[in-house]
Order: sequence, then structure tokens, then C-alpha cells
Amino acid sequence: MKVLVSNDDGIDAAGIIALVEELEKFAEVFVIAPLMEQSAAGHSITIKRPLKIIDFHRNNKFFGYAVDGTPADCVKIGITTILKFKPDIVLSGINHGSNTATNVIYSGTVSAAREALLMGISGIAFSLDSRTSENIKDAAKIAASITRTTLLKGLNKGTFLNVNIPDLPIDEIKGIKVTRQGKAKWADSYIKKYDVIGREFYQLTGEFNQFDENDDDSDHLALTTGWVAVTPVKLDITDYEELESIKNWEFNF
Amino acid sequence: MKVLVSNDDGIDAAGIIALVEELEKFAEVFVIAPLMEQSAAGHSITIKRPLKIIDFHRNNKFFGYAVDGTPADCVKIGITTILKFKPDIVLSGINHGSNTATNVIYSGTVSAAREALLMGISGIAFSLDSRTSENIKDAAKIAASITRTTLLKGLNKGTFLNVNIPDLPIDEIKGIKVTRQGKAKWADSYIKKYDVIGREFYQLTGEFNQFDENDDDSDHLALTTGWVAVTPVKLDITDYEELESIKNWEFNF
Repeated sequence: MKVLVSNDDGIDAAGIIALVEELEKFAEVFVIAPLMEQSAAGHSITIKRPLKIIDFHRNNKFFGYAVDGTPADCVKIGITTILKFKPDIVLSGINHGSNTATNVIYSGTVSAAREALLMGISGIAFSLDSRTSENIKDAAKIAASITRTTLLKGLNKGTFLNVNIPDLPIDEIKGIKVTRQGKAKWADSYIKKYDVIGREFYQLTGEFNQFDENDDDSDHLALTTGWVAVTPVKLDITDYEELESIKNWEFNF
Repeated sequence: MKVLVSNDDGIDAAGIIALVEELEKFAEVFVIAPLMEQSAAGHSITIKRPLKIIDFHRNNKFFGYAVDGTPADCVKIGITTILKFKPDIVLSGINHGSNTATNVIYSGTVSAAREALLMGISGIAFSLDSRTSENIKDAAKIAASITRTTLLKGLNKGTFLNVNIPDLPIDEIKGIKVTRQGKAKWADSYIKKYDVIGREFYQLTGEFNQFDENDDDSDHLALTTGWVAVTPVKLDITDYEELESIKNWEFNF
């Protein structure tokens, strides 16, 4: 089995290292990941400048290819130019921090799995609900297991998976729930900052608000109550219901 | 009527200028747009550094606020920090180049309209199918008309519109079609480039391939055959069909 692994925290993040170590037990693993952190990169790609590919070593051993671009860039250049073949699956993560609800839209981690699907390859994004990542090795075991199940069962060709894992020891996790994108979202605000000569700048901050208290299918609620949340995500984001209703509008120009 | 206008080509692009001139005939217009071009920014946001807001003038007159960030940043900081009120609608564009099919995923133009919806405001992304933009003034008239119809009819709260306009004189346009995201997509490749001391870099290039020949509902096909394509896009990108099927998988870890 051939697995391409990318992420958005950068090639030297603990999450990707833990995932690769677990995958190497049963697969041939290729690491192609951003050189620098790309959190909140969304599905951005680099079109205005050329990309650099750097051999990245860990403990004096080749670990993978670092690309000075985004997660989606890594998958694109990885498959077309570095590997030159299609792996069986593309995995992204394990991200340090969850990617539930509206964060699915901003997430660089998620974009690498989506880019795989755009290229006709199964993709899974993995995120851990914590920045301290105490249980990252247990999370990697769970990620490896979900990868094997996904390859065995097969996804339909318009879908990839977004998986969020609680930062708990494996025996304290309640199980796996198949969920939908929840309604939790950020209430944004900006804090004023000043540079050394007193000019104003604005730093994004905010609060993540949960709106899914009574919704058993929400990814965010499942995750924060001790479940691994597995959400299938579509490539086709047309709103077909609204499409039928808009057909009745009278447009004039 | 209060309208916030952003884009991804940057605050000095011909497309945003033409759109603003047309809107000013019937609305109070606020321009908050990226200082620098943000094409293919996807739905990225700036979280690691503070943003700068610059008063931008055209013809010795205040035109709007330039932000050194992405389209989604402009909408976030625009509404929370610059305007401090919710406009009636957020418009993005007019983009120089179409945003149909899979380009909806990479597009910075589209992300500004999506960000508006995330903040509970109607959003429309406008793109012109041309980089030369000969008929940009006619496109702005069409965009203004679609804006008025949308405000009159109202969108449901999980949907924004992605509108693509052919670069044709207004009397050569066939009309408006309500469409879905087509299946056309890029076949990517990378060209080798070298820096002044001979090191290798890779520049993204590719071909956009049409796969919708027989699909009357495709945004890309409608656009390239002379129609304005109006596609409703969802915030919730869960694949509900696949969700039911994955519930039957047996996960073990």
C-alpha cells in the first residue's frame, strides 16, 4: 500500500511524525509537506511564483520532501512531479487543533485531502482536539485504523473524510461516530497592535461558539464529548434545493 | 441600501472599480479589498500576524480601505472593525477570469462571498470570463441587476451566489441560467524554472478540461456558450448520502 502524507503544521510537526511512524508498520509512506506552517491556508494554491522542493531529514535520515507552499500545493506537486504516480490514499495531519464545523472551510489540513480527491485519489484529513497533543501516538493508531477501514470499504468518488480525534488515551475514547459538519463558529474580533513607531495593526482573535447542544450528529459535539468524529465531505458544493427555488426568480438586465 | 464590496484582484483592479461605479447609482457603497492580488487564495485567512488597514484613493478621492490580507480577511475585519455594522449584502469582484466548476474551490473571489454568509450576510461573487475584460462595464450593469433581484427575493441562510458573466456586449448575452458547479477541472503540471545561480524551482501550469458537454445545468458550459451562470453554493459541505453509507462500516481500533 502506497500512502502520501501531508499536513498544514509543517513537515517537522509532531503530528505528522507520529502518523508516519504508525503508517510505516503496514504501508510504504511518502511525506510531502509544507516547509513552514500553513494553518488557516484554506484551499489556497501558489500560482504566481515557482515552488522549491527541499529534501528534509530527521535524525540524520531522509524523512520526506518539504515544499515552500500550501498543503494543496504539496499534494499537486507531490503527485504530478515528485512521485509521478497516484498513491492509494492521501492523508493529511495529524493537525494540532480540531477542524470541526466552520473550521472545515478555513482549514489547510482539510484542503490537502480535498486536493487528493480533485486528483481522483481518496483523501482523509486527521485533526487532534488539542495543541498540547499529549495523546498524539494513540491518535496516530486510531488514524491508521481508520485509513485501513477506508481503503477496505472505499469512498464514493465525490467524497473525502474529515476526522477529528479527542486528545485522550485510547481506552478513554468512547468510539467512532459518523457525523456531519456542525454549526459551531467563530465570533471574530480584532485586537489593536502597534509597531515600534506606533502605527496601528489589527490581530484576529475570537471565540468559538457551540450551537449544536441538541444535535447528536454534529462533528464538534461528538468530538468534545469523547468521540472520534468522522465526517464525509463533498466536492460538489452546489445548493440544489436553492437552485430549484432560484429558477423561479425573474432576472432582468 | 448599504453594500460592502471586496475582491481578490486587489483594490485597484478594473473589475472592482467598474462594479462600484455601477452600484453607486442606487446604493451606499463601502469598498474594503486586498491591497495586493490574492488570486487562488481559497478561503485562507491571516491568523499569525496583524493586518494593516490603508486608506486608498483614486483620482484624488477616497475610494475605500485596502487591507494587506486575503479576501476573507477583508470581509471579517471590514464588518467587525471598519464598518462596525452589517451591510445589506457583500459583493465580491468583478473578478478578472471565470470561477466555475472546481475553480470555486480555489477562488479568493468566491471566499469573500462565503465569508459574508458565515457572518450572517447575503453574499454574491461575480467573475468575468476574460482577463482582457473588454465588456467590464456591461458586466457591472448585469452584476448590479442581479444584486437588486437577490435583495428583493432573498437567499436562504445557508446559501450564497457564485455568478459568472461572459465577456460579451450586453445585447449579445443570451440571458441568465441558474446552474450547478460543473465538472470541468485542471490537469495540473509544473514547469522547471531556475534561479540566477541555477537552483531548480517548479511553476504551476495546466489545462482546464471541460467534462460537461451534455450537461445543460453546468456553470462552465452555460458561461462558455454565452449565458450568465448563477450558481447557489452551500456552506454545509457534508456529504449526507455517504454519511448514511459510512454508518454501516465497522470501525475497530
